[in-house]
Amino acid sequence: MSDKAIISLSGGCDSATCLGVAVDEYGPGNVIAVSFEYGQKHAKELECADALCAYYNVEHVTIELGRCGIFDGADCSLLRDSDKAIPNGSYSEQINENGVSTYVPFRNGLMLSCLAAKAVSIDSGADWVIFLGAHSDDAAGNAYADCSRAFVDAISQAIEIGTYGKVAVKAPFVEMNKADVVAAGLRLGVPYELTWSCYKGGERQCGRCGTCLDRIAAFESNGVLDPVPYDEVI
Amino acid sequence: MSDKAIISLSGGCDSATCLGVAVDEYGPGNVIAVSFEYGQKHAKELECADALCAYYNVEHVTIELGRCGIFDGADCSLLRDSDKAIPNGSYSEQINENGVSTYVPFRNGLMLSCLAAKAVSIDSGADWVIFLGAHSDDAAGNAYADCSRAFVDAISQAIEIGTYGKVAVKAPFVEMNKADVVAAGLRLGVPYELTWSCYKGGERQCGRCGTCLDRIAAFESNGVLDPVPYDEVI
Repeated sequence: MSDKAIISLSGGCDSATCLGVAVDEYGPGNVIAVSFEYGQKHAKELECADALCAYYNVEHVTIELGRCGIFDGADCSLLRDSDKAIPNGSYSEQINENGVSTYVPFRNGLMLSCLAAKAVSIDSGADWVIFLGAHSDDAAGNAYADCSRAFVDAISQAIEIGTYGKVAVKAPFVEMNKADVVAAGLRLGVPYELTWSCYKGGERQCGRCGTCLDRIAAFESNGVLDPVPYDEVI
Repeated sequence: MSDKAIISLSGGCDSATCLGVAVDEYGPGNVIAVSFEYGQKHAKELECADALCAYYNVEHVTIELGRCGIFDGADCSLLRDSDKAIPNGSYSEQINENGVSTYVPFRNGLMLSCLAAKAVSIDSGADWVIFLGAHSDDAAGNAYADCSRAFVDAISQAIEIGTYGKVAVKAPFVEMNKADVVAAGLRLGVPYELTWSCYKGGERQCGRCGTCLDRIAAFESNGVLDPVPYDEVI
């Protein structure tokens, strides 16, 4: 087993569950959570990431990729520079050959590369594992190309080779659907009341965008009430 | 062939040659050069990157990764936050199991991920190719783990999958040594007088650090005088 874990934590349901798994396996003192500010329309999820780290007593680092201009001009409804609205409805209704409008260009690849660089920068003598909360529903129909098993396998290999074998990648949910992710989290007692999944930045989660619909369905599949309030549940 | 090319341009000998290849294949109007400010000790190479782009008449973008704090704390002599001195002598004299002291954690992986994200952000409808100037001398003895053929193959696959097949990676020199890179550049008329390879930020290139020694040897192998002046040539 590696010495230390570093995790990409958005503050949503999946990454919160992944944090629960990482803390369960490594202990809070050996886990570092990293959140990314990359120009997303709202900061709700980053506030939730903070609350989750306080709950689990793990170190929280924020990397402000938005300051670098990497995504300037991107045709992505999730970004505040875009005038595209965030669509309602499930991913399967929205998908085309370029995935979904909420796809941020190569976001997971960039975030994982940042985590690899950050891990070695923090401690080049340790063996690290990067945790990623991607699951099979996000990859279904190639909605998010950078959530698939094939993507995770390839980037894992690149990171392992490119860090002299110091950094591995673990995506424990890559073959699971979101309902199974929530099931795993419920078993671990993940504090879902502290999470934020909605793509919109309203006072409450909207209940109508792709990620809200997926989340609601995942809790329903488990026969459990989602503890966060919604504006509307269809 | 892809529609557009995007290239990681440090302003050194290898990436300048790679820019020459990209412009030769795609034409200056279809090439975008990206330089990275990541906290390196001097800006000489970035000034050279600017001059090279002006010479070739290609668009030049700078991404300031240094503002994100990713490499904070890294044990790397190339970074200005490090109190390690840049060593003199060839890579082969310096190498240990963690490569060389000038290895910036997962730098090539991070830069390639930025280029993939940037390319799709600029034009998600185009087919892109990323050019990388890594060559086999940099990978020899695993000095720079993120310059090897195995690394390039893995990250290429990750980028292709993670961008819905929109972005490919081309590392034309990955099986060539530096002498062959310079030979290719001389054939293409690359303006080497505009480049900066030295790790140190002196008025002239030092002639003693690993990259200076490699460069000097590469020009010597070609029986050509390196057009940049050196403080000292051993």
